[in-house]
Amino acid sequence: TIYVITPTYARLVQKAELTRLAQTFLHVPQLQWIIVEDSPHKTPLVTAFLASSGLAYTHLHTPTPRDRKLQEGDPSWLKPRGAEQRNEGLRWLREDRRGQTGAETQLGVVYFADDDNTYSLQLFDEMRDTQRVSVWPVGLVGGMRYERPVVEGGKVVRFHTGWRPSRPFPLDMAGFAVSLKLVIVNQDACFDGDAPMGFLESSFLQGLVTMDELEPKADNCTKVLVWHTRTEKPKMKREEALQKQGLGSDTTVEV
Amino acid sequence: TIYVITPTYARLVQKAELTRLAQTFLHVPQLQWIIVEDSPHKTPLVTAFLASSGLAYTHLHTPTPRDRKLQEGDPSWLKPRGAEQRNEGLRWLREDRRGQTGAETQLGVVYFADDDNTYSLQLFDEMRDTQRVSVWPVGLVGGMRYERPVVEGGKVVRFHTGWRPSRPFPLDMAGFAVSLKLVIVNQDACFDGDAPMGFLESSFLQGLVTMDELEPKADNCTKVLVWHTRTEKPKMKREEALQKQGLGSDTTVEV
Ligand SMILES: O=c1ccn([C@@H]2O[C@H](COP(=O)(O)OP(=O)(O)O)[C@@H](O)[C@H]2O)c(=O)[nH]1
Ligand SMILES: O=c1ccn([C@@H]2O[C@H](COP(=O)(O)OP(=O)(O)O)[C@@H](O)[C@H]2O)c(=O)[nH]1
Ligand SMILES: [Mn+2]
Ligand SMILES: [Mn+2]
Repeated sequence: TIYVITPTYARLVQKAELTRLAQTFLHVPQLQWIIVEDSPHKTPLVTAFLASSGLAYTHLHTPTPRDRKLQEGDPSWLKPRGAEQRNEGLRWLREDRRGQTGAETQLGVVYFADDDNTYSLQLFDEMRDTQRVSVWPVGLVGGMRYERPVVEGGKVVRFHTGWRPSRPFPLDMAGFAVSLKLVIVNQDACFDGDAPMGFLESSFLQGLVTMDELEPKADNCTKVLVWHTRTEKPKMKREEALQKQGLGSDTTVEV
Repeated sequence: TIYVITPTYARLVQKAELTRLAQTFLHVPQLQWIIVEDSPHKTPLVTAFLASSGLAYTHLHTPTPRDRKLQEGDPSWLKPRGAEQRNEGLRWLREDRRGQTGAETQLGVVYFADDDNTYSLQLFDEMRDTQRVSVWPVGLVGGMRYERPVVEGGKVVRFHTGWRPSRPFPLDMAGFAVSLKLVIVNQDACFDGDAPMGFLESSFLQGLVTMDELEPKADNCTKVLVWHTRTEKPKMKREEALQKQGLGSDTTVEV
């Protein structure tokens, strides 16, 4: 089983993003979607969406503490986004397996899929046989056409990135998967929401694996199978003008 | 069959957009994708992508004339986008059926799907039995939460839109489908690339249908099943800096 952990938060494009993500996952056999809302409660929109999605899912929630939350107007890179939610997903996975015995309860792969990226179906085939940590290129990330591990003789020897290649693991969240076993054995591995910019992935991977042990996928990291797309925030100028006249869109219509 | 006509053009996010669009269409039975590149030739990227997509498709191309093409820095609303490409799709549909007889050659529905929008699967169920022209709401468009036809007694009586509701058909491209028969019978109906801003859809629909004849779908136009999402243009600052040092991403790696 591939356990996909997705942080998500309420905004105008949320349902659209979840819609196309669910359509991707519906093509993938043996996938469980662990969706974690950045919210003090489960929202009706996500609850209803998941119930009619046709996917196997687990619906969690945890709010990002106020001081760690990006505020309106902050540049998006200022604070890590989704760290607490990914940790909540990890907590649930470990908890769910606690007390279960037998090797098969540790079989599986964990992948962190943000709700706005674009995932090819081939990506899931590539990650399925991850032994410890598998890695591959990510398109359109970090101000680059792609970032990727550089592979020589079947091993990752360095990283192609536009920024601080000396970071322990200069990988985007979308660029690796971890075996469930490794997650369970390393009970304390988690994302450090206070990590400096660009070090969030490293804070999790550092205790789990060494560069030498990384398993390169996607043809020795030569194929881009996932893209760090971002969706524009829709402008609501006309809506606001109409609302002032009492002619705004019906707020009971879910968008 | 639902014939989906999609204009598309080369840019950094193109393959990502086509990837998620294809994943949507793979869920829809009896769909043929008519993809029309805004290009003087078929590109290798789109050609290879379609060949491995698993979809039934027709690959066309036609370049937008220079004077009609949006230039770098132009606001996106300045000129209509994709008009020539949609017309090329219509031309092919009519040509393909020329000389064929029998009512079944005119069976089908034509939908214009931009490559960056988000489509629910239910949308395709709704449009499948279009008699002439069916309509429904579009989310996140025109500076509004949604635009939609307003339905009273089963008929469209006006339009909820933030701008010039008096246009003949103040509908977004994603908000209607047309029966193939109507397209074939009205041989000259096409999109007017010189139409003033906001009148492109009207230029096509005007000759085909009256407001009175519109068929409201999606629960009398109360459900949003398609979203006018837009994808951010990725920044390439680090890529450009590295390129100057001869350390840019490998240009033979397709993104
Ligand atoms: O306040 C926030 C902002 C983002 N996210 C989620 O965290 C992930 C990464 O956020 P985003 O895509 O905005 O980051 P970027 O694209 O800038 O890396 C996504 O799944 C978001 O839905 C979240 O849970 N709370
Ligand atoms: O020069 C261009 C710009 C856009 N398009 C296509 O035309 C459609 C509408 O363009 P876009 O989504 O940029 O328009 P908007 O979202 O601003 O309405 C999309 O399928 C694009 O791929 C095109 O063929 N050539
Ligand atoms: Mn993102
Ligand atoms: Mn668009």
